[in-house]
Amino acid sequence: MYEYSHGGNAIFEKGREHIIDLSANINPLGVPENLFEAITHEMPNINRYPDNFSTLLREKTAAYERVNPDWMMFTGGASEILFRLPRALSARKVMLCSPTFADYERSALSHGAKVISHVLRKEDGFSINYDFMKAVQSEKPDLIYICNPNNPTGIITEKTLIKELLECCKQIGARVVIDECFIDFVEQAEMHTSKPFLAGYNNLVIVKAFKKIFALAGIRLGYAMCSDEDVIRRLYFHGPDWAVSNIAQAAGVAALDNAERYIRETQEYVSKERTTMKMELKHLGYTTFESLANYIFFQSPFTFDLCKELDERGLRIRSCSNYYGLDGTYYRVAVSTKGNNTKFLKTIKEITKC
Amino acid sequence: MYEYSHGGNAIFEKGREHIIDLSANINPLGVPENLFEAITHEMPNINRYPDNFSTLLREKTAAYERVNPDWMMFTGGASEILFRLPRALSARKVMLCSPTFADYERSALSHGAKVISHVLRKEDGFSINYDFMKAVQSEKPDLIYICNPNNPTGIITEKTLIKELLECCKQIGARVVIDECFIDFVEQAEMHTSKPFLAGYNNLVIVKAFKKIFALAGIRLGYAMCSDEDVIRRLYFHGPDWAVSNIAQAAGVAALDNAERYIRETQEYVSKERTTMKMELKHLGYTTFESLANYIFFQSPFTFDLCKELDERGLRIRSCSNYYGLDGTYYRVAVSTKGNNTKFLKTIKEITKC
Repeated sequence: MYEYSHGGNAIFEKGREHIIDLSANINPLGVPENLFEAITHEMPNINRYPDNFSTLLREKTAAYERVNPDWMMFTGGASEILFRLPRALSARKVMLCSPTFADYERSALSHGAKVISHVLRKEDGFSINYDFMKAVQSEKPDLIYICNPNNPTGIITEKTLIKELLECCKQIGARVVIDECFIDFVEQAEMHTSKPFLAGYNNLVIVKAFKKIFALAGIRLGYAMCSDEDVIRRLYFHGPDWAVSNIAQAAGVAALDNAERYIRETQEYVSKERTTMKMELKHLGYTTFESLANYIFFQSPFTFDLCKELDERGLRIRSCSNYYGLDGTYYRVAVSTKGNNTKFLKTIKEITKC
Repeated sequence: MYEYSHGGNAIFEKGREHIIDLSANINPLGVPENLFEAITHEMPNINRYPDNFSTLLREKTAAYERVNPDWMMFTGGASEILFRLPRALSARKVMLCSPTFADYERSALSHGAKVISHVLRKEDGFSINYDFMKAVQSEKPDLIYICNPNNPTGIITEKTLIKELLECCKQIGARVVIDECFIDFVEQAEMHTSKPFLAGYNNLVIVKAFKKIFALAGIRLGYAMCSDEDVIRRLYFHGPDWAVSNIAQAAGVAALDNAERYIRETQEYVSKERTTMKMELKHLGYTTFESLANYIFFQSPFTFDLCKELDERGLRIRSCSNYYGLDGTYYRVAVSTKGNNTKFLKTIKEITKC
């Protein structure tokens, strides 16, 4: 069988159905209440083809994001956009910053593009800095990926650097994909998003998902934003029609109803819990980094296998050993519900102090 | 905007929300009743990641199809499988029989493969015959597509020919994709399916969907079957993980509960209605062909624009003018509910006799 390499699959392992899963980064506030009603309401329509252009959802999201609806394209999940992008952009040489989300590389390899990894350094706190820009200028890729905040580190890339990267890429004829799937978990997300660059840089594509922020892991819904409408057309061409189910479209529309309040509450909750969890981890001797997202990236100085120890005690976190640029001493843990976070801290304390 | 070229989208056109849509080939018996309950039951789990390998659904479908579950792979719709296939099979030269479903060509072009169309002839009733095998032997593609029954014609390809094509392709090192998305609408489908060839020919991939037969147009659910497990692994690799939502998996599992009875009833209903509709069309002067599926392919000898005339009277059928190998005199109409079929026949009679 093909080897699955992400988090979030514990409940499908025999005997692990009741594990507390902190390996997936889903909004701990859970699914907005009104979604269930919206889905139930949509059910009688499941014998109809969905709107191929997700018109209602696209217009509502456009108003929410303050982006032109013609610059948006929805598919079944952000990963599906990632898999369409290398073909839509005819990418031959792709650059990314490791460690990062695995699908940038996988989708580029799937298309037959060359992938160059710029390895981020622990000494720089795994942040993307001007070294990356120098590497881009020297390698001259035709497509670069920035995950902002980065997964698994949670680290935000400075907006001034992003602007310079966009300018530099414009000059060498490269496209820039910025994955903002986790940006709405960051306090003052509007300060960090690259949306204001869309109008001025038609080489920019921003990718977002409903999954993480609206806790819709079991629904497929993601979107791309780009001011080059030819890219939007090509994103439609390079994948199946009807990619967003009726139910996903209805769920998305409902999610936006109270989005501003829901996201503000999420940010406040995540920030507070993350601070507590990070402090405790530091206190126990773990090295933490500057995550601003709904997960904490940390390194263990101890010799025991933390994942294994936690697993035996009914908890699952994400080992980062399969990320290029990292090793088995790095971990990622999601900021979850208060109960789960407390259980995690109590358990890791027991393991570490043994 | 990217130009949408399939049927089934009438309800999203302004002023056409209430049109009777016979341009899409969805099961007129409607969604099996127990699906609504299954979806409602699954709803509390939409904050969880779906099982990447659709284990429960795969095992249940495997038992139903009498195929090894390790030979099956599910994604969000058959079209998504079509888009993964050219990359999963490293196709460089693809052959198909025109007219046929547009996504074989589009997915091959998306991958950068060369596409050769073998044009089916009206004189042969648009059936695939030994001319195609000769063309394959001469062109030596590495991938061929057979839509069985074909869309838009509804014509079945002889099983003896399929076996010879499999043998011929094995010898030239080519893969054979057989799209059986409409086969369960055909009476005695088990006589026509190529499933018995899976074990002996690991160059065969069969593609199927839940959409058409279970009237699940608004849910994304399709699967591939292949005895070469390396192809199954590559199908997973060449597209996003978690491609099948929790709700789609639950709907699929429920659909299979009464599948045998539901499919038998569908076949009986479709066969009877199709016969009546074809007879009437012939009687009015239209040329019909040997469709065994849930749609009728026909040619008009008249000069008026049938689609336009029907549209003005609140009915939508599929013009086949954008199929390679056809022109504006060809049409496809779905076998729908009794009420819709009667309305269609009454209306076309009025138009034709004017």
